[in-house]
Amino acid sequence: MSNYVIGLDFGTNSCRSLIVDVETGKEVASHVFPYPSGKDGVIVDASDPNLARQNPADYLRGIEAAIKGALKKAKAAKKNFSSSNIIGIGVDTTGSSPMPVDANGQALCFDKKFRKNPAAMVWLWKDHTGYAEAAHITETAARTRPQYLGKIGGVYSSEWWWSKILHCKNTAPKVFEASYSWAEICDWITANLTGELHPKKMKRSICAAGHKAMFSTEWNGLPDVEFLEALSPGLGALRSRLYDEAYTSENRAGTLSKEWTKKLGLSPGVAVSIGAFDAHMGAVGAGIHTGTLVKIIGTSTCDIMIHPKTETLNDIPGVCGIVNGSVMSGYYGIEAGQSGVGDIFLWFVNNLVPDSYGKTQEKKFKELEAAARRLKPGESGLLALDWNNGNRTILVDTRLTGLLIGQTLHTKPHEIYRALIEATAFGALAIIDRIEEHGVAIRKVMNCGGLTSKNPLLMQIYADVTGRPMKISRSDQTPALGAAIFGAVAAGRKSGGYGSTEEAQKKMTGTGKVFMPVEANHFVYKKLYSLYKQLHDGFGTTDWNGGMHNVMKELLTTRDEVRKATSC
Amino acid sequence: MSNYVIGLDFGTNSCRSLIVDVETGKEVASHVFPYPSGKDGVIVDASDPNLARQNPADYLRGIEAAIKGALKKAKAAKKNFSSSNIIGIGVDTTGSSPMPVDANGQALCFDKKFRKNPAAMVWLWKDHTGYAEAAHITETAARTRPQYLGKIGGVYSSEWWWSKILHCKNTAPKVFEASYSWAEICDWITANLTGELHPKKMKRSICAAGHKAMFSTEWNGLPDVEFLEALSPGLGALRSRLYDEAYTSENRAGTLSKEWTKKLGLSPGVAVSIGAFDAHMGAVGAGIHTGTLVKIIGTSTCDIMIHPKTETLNDIPGVCGIVNGSVMSGYYGIEAGQSGVGDIFLWFVNNLVPDSYGKTQEKKFKELEAAARRLKPGESGLLALDWNNGNRTILVDTRLTGLLIGQTLHTKPHEIYRALIEATAFGALAIIDRIEEHGVAIRKVMNCGGLTSKNPLLMQIYADVTGRPMKISRSDQTPALGAAIFGAVAAGRKSGGYGSTEEAQKKMTGTGKVFMPVEANHFVYKKLYSLYKQLHDGFGTTDWNGGMHNVMKELLTTRDEVRKATSC
Repeated sequence: MSNYVIGLDFGTNSCRSLIVDVETGKEVASHVFPYPSGKDGVIVDASDPNLARQNPADYLRGIEAAIKGALKKAKAAKKNFSSSNIIGIGVDTTGSSPMPVDANGQALCFDKKFRKNPAAMVWLWKDHTGYAEAAHITETAARTRPQYLGKIGGVYSSEWWWSKILHCKNTAPKVFEASYSWAEICDWITANLTGELHPKKMKRSICAAGHKAMFSTEWNGLPDVEFLEALSPGLGALRSRLYDEAYTSENRAGTLSKEWTKKLGLSPGVAVSIGAFDAHMGAVGAGIHTGTLVKIIGTSTCDIMIHPKTETLNDIPGVCGIVNGSVMSGYYGIEAGQSGVGDIFLWFVNNLVPDSYGKTQEKKFKELEAAARRLKPGESGLLALDWNNGNRTILVDTRLTGLLIGQTLHTKPHEIYRALIEATAFGALAIIDRIEEHGVAIRKVMNCGGLTSKNPLLMQIYADVTGRPMKISRSDQTPALGAAIFGAVAAGRKSGGYGSTEEAQKKMTGTGKVFMPVEANHFVYKKLYSLYKQLHDGFGTTDWNGGMHNVMKELLTTRDEVRKATSC
Repeated sequence: MSNYVIGLDFGTNSCRSLIVDVETGKEVASHVFPYPSGKDGVIVDASDPNLARQNPADYLRGIEAAIKGALKKAKAAKKNFSSSNIIGIGVDTTGSSPMPVDANGQALCFDKKFRKNPAAMVWLWKDHTGYAEAAHITETAARTRPQYLGKIGGVYSSEWWWSKILHCKNTAPKVFEASYSWAEICDWITANLTGELHPKKMKRSICAAGHKAMFSTEWNGLPDVEFLEALSPGLGALRSRLYDEAYTSENRAGTLSKEWTKKLGLSPGVAVSIGAFDAHMGAVGAGIHTGTLVKIIGTSTCDIMIHPKTETLNDIPGVCGIVNGSVMSGYYGIEAGQSGVGDIFLWFVNNLVPDSYGKTQEKKFKELEAAARRLKPGESGLLALDWNNGNRTILVDTRLTGLLIGQTLHTKPHEIYRALIEATAFGALAIIDRIEEHGVAIRKVMNCGGLTSKNPLLMQIYADVTGRPMKISRSDQTPALGAAIFGAVAAGRKSGGYGSTEEAQKKMTGTGKVFMPVEANHFVYKKLYSLYKQLHDGFGTTDWNGGMHNVMKELLTTRDEVRKATSC
């Protein structure tokens, strides 16, 4: 009889449950529950595009519906499947997505008084209402606690924990005052599963705490009271009602509560592992280990590596997050990323592609890809920077923008589309180079996320630009698989799980398709990359002084050479 | 009884006849004759997009049809109009559009042997088949006759006289050998009208000869035999069968021949003035005088000024044509221009604007203009270079390309459209500044050409960017009006015409609409122009060394300030 684990993945619009065979990693069944509240699960405000909240009741309904749905499918698919062989549950969520809770750890918006108050709900990762507070935190830390900024690349984001809490304090003081504590949803959901909701007993994730809440053992946990008071008088008092410890996801948050065990029809004693963010768990589900860069490619990109704690790790300038244990116990987690990838393609297709390429977004993408695929590297004479949404890693600067160069009177949309894909590939290579230049070797690149399966042209271009094989994770649900893996580790060897994450990964993860670099393409891209780097350094740094006169001409020369070679 | 003159304007797709009242400049009637040959009058070759030829028979049919049509309309419109009161005819054409002729000056393609041979036809201005020959001419002149290049901005164009003749010699030697001489169509058409077709007696235009054929009194007319032989052995022999003199358009090519006088039903003795290119005659029709910059704005832009021969005129670096008498007798003609204006907008609308802006090109333009008009200067955060077709004036470099900077995930097509219009306005200002910096004051800017009446947003942006009133010529057929003016001058005072071009212009030209600059807009554009100049010098010259880091940030700062001011 096989043992199974459940990965619960809480996304922006829905949650997913994935049942995985512990021995083989085979994904037995999966069920998705779309959040019923708001617009596609997000509570928005027409008058403020920065606002994005969620109703935590959706998560509780989601746990039940998604797990029950998957169990039903598993039973239908596999005759000898039994719910009683579920040994562990892992949870990953979006983040930083904090919410205010009362003294019992209950969501403040469950209280009748606050039921319709968005400030009392979950402040979803993409809520940017706290942008002024973020700037204030960066500025205050730069002045008084530069060490806090050292770990996060120098800039505190409006997407993160303290920006949101401070904005709540500034704009919804009644909610702030009524809140006893705050919790990331990855912690609040596992706390619900174990039944231990008390804010001081609720087990907190080091992944969430690490950069988002500026938690570090180097300064005794969360930022000190004096600093919080300097941010806003009265904020300091919250510190003692938050947490002093944070844990890696191999640890148990606890055991599934009696109520949930009964409701879901499982056996008693199911382990619930500590929660974490989707990207970090996705990296584990993609089989991350020392020397492997995991790229999670979607609207933006998350690049994750791990580095053994036993080996030296120097600072990597411009890499925004290095947190001990944020991915796996025993390793530093290294987090980098590109602020815009799929989002740039979506912007282009939705705004600048005529209907001659197709009437729908899907058809336009298909036709663009077919036409772009027929182009040789360098053939269009175009070059772009991938900064439409700023630059997260290396330059760590949101006040950067897109750039397109080389257009003539004959430039076609599919040429620009290809140039935009290439720009994101050059951005990816710049991150790879930066990490390697600072002593962390990258021996394998493993890709996962929506675009890896949807866009083979993109993956081939990434292989050709980087000159490295681009491997695709066998699973296309790596965050849920990663959560399931932690469920198996939290269950432990005695219960039929694993003794370590590495051990679990060996059995439960694997490689799917591999895109091999084409040498002739890589040769041209090396030239284009040097021009990309010139624009990157020229527009992105203050220490470029070399002129730009060569850029257009070298693009035209490359174009002419490629066209000549192609026509021979 | 009024006297009248006829302006004949030979365009790319059709020719037009315009009958003008000599006393008032009133345009009495106009008639257009579309050329019957080829595709819209242009003989093309599907296998060679550079090829563009014309059938000279179309011009002869066009003279008759266009003049007869206009005379008929004039009689219908004005009871006391009489064909016998026509005193002069002027001719303007595209150029450089040379054609091979036999020893009688007849078109070689009128010979049965060459009837279907495109090499024996008119090599239309936009024929680029001689691009390799153009490079060879530039290279040879740079080595041995740098003075030839000094007058034309340093680069000989594939659109010009010698490139085409040399390409004919290289690729159609039988045609080259059978040709006794060559003629620009502006000279061949007037020769037809006067009946004096002999190549050595045919009166040649200084406007055409000036830069296109590298003719100058400084070196005794056309390039010397030795130079031509160096270009291609055997080419030198042609020189003595071409011409030694070239004339301004105030001069008579002759009197209308008996055959034409009869065919058209005119009185004997009608003066025919020397032909010239459309842009130069357009400048005269727009009322050019000392201190006035005439901008002819269409797919590209031609900027024309005149400077009295009696006053010093220094070289203006990067201004491609300074030719004595090319516009008017007694003045240096100064010719500058932008390689892409309307063409850039056409490229954008045809390639990068979705159908949500409209189903047709016309509707898209209309909706783009309406939406772009609602934007404030600087509001989009975008900035572009207008180099999609290279840079003709200042940088004189065809190997430059477009650039767009400042795009985010929210950038809309009408924002880019406005940025492209602004880019051409910045390019226009750069030319104005360049001319003034070298001692030629610009006291008035007069605009004509298709886009001035079709695109009021463009004209307002030009006013706001330059901080100068943009005046629009009263006539919207300025090349034909300019030709008519020269017809009146060639007729002379005694026949009821004028003693000088200035005198004729005073009566026959005028100003229509005026776009006044808005100070608040000019203030923002001054800021954006400094960034444009930075990109211009950075990407266009080798002497820029100042970094680019400020560009994106200043665009965002300006954008944020404008948006803040707008929302207050």
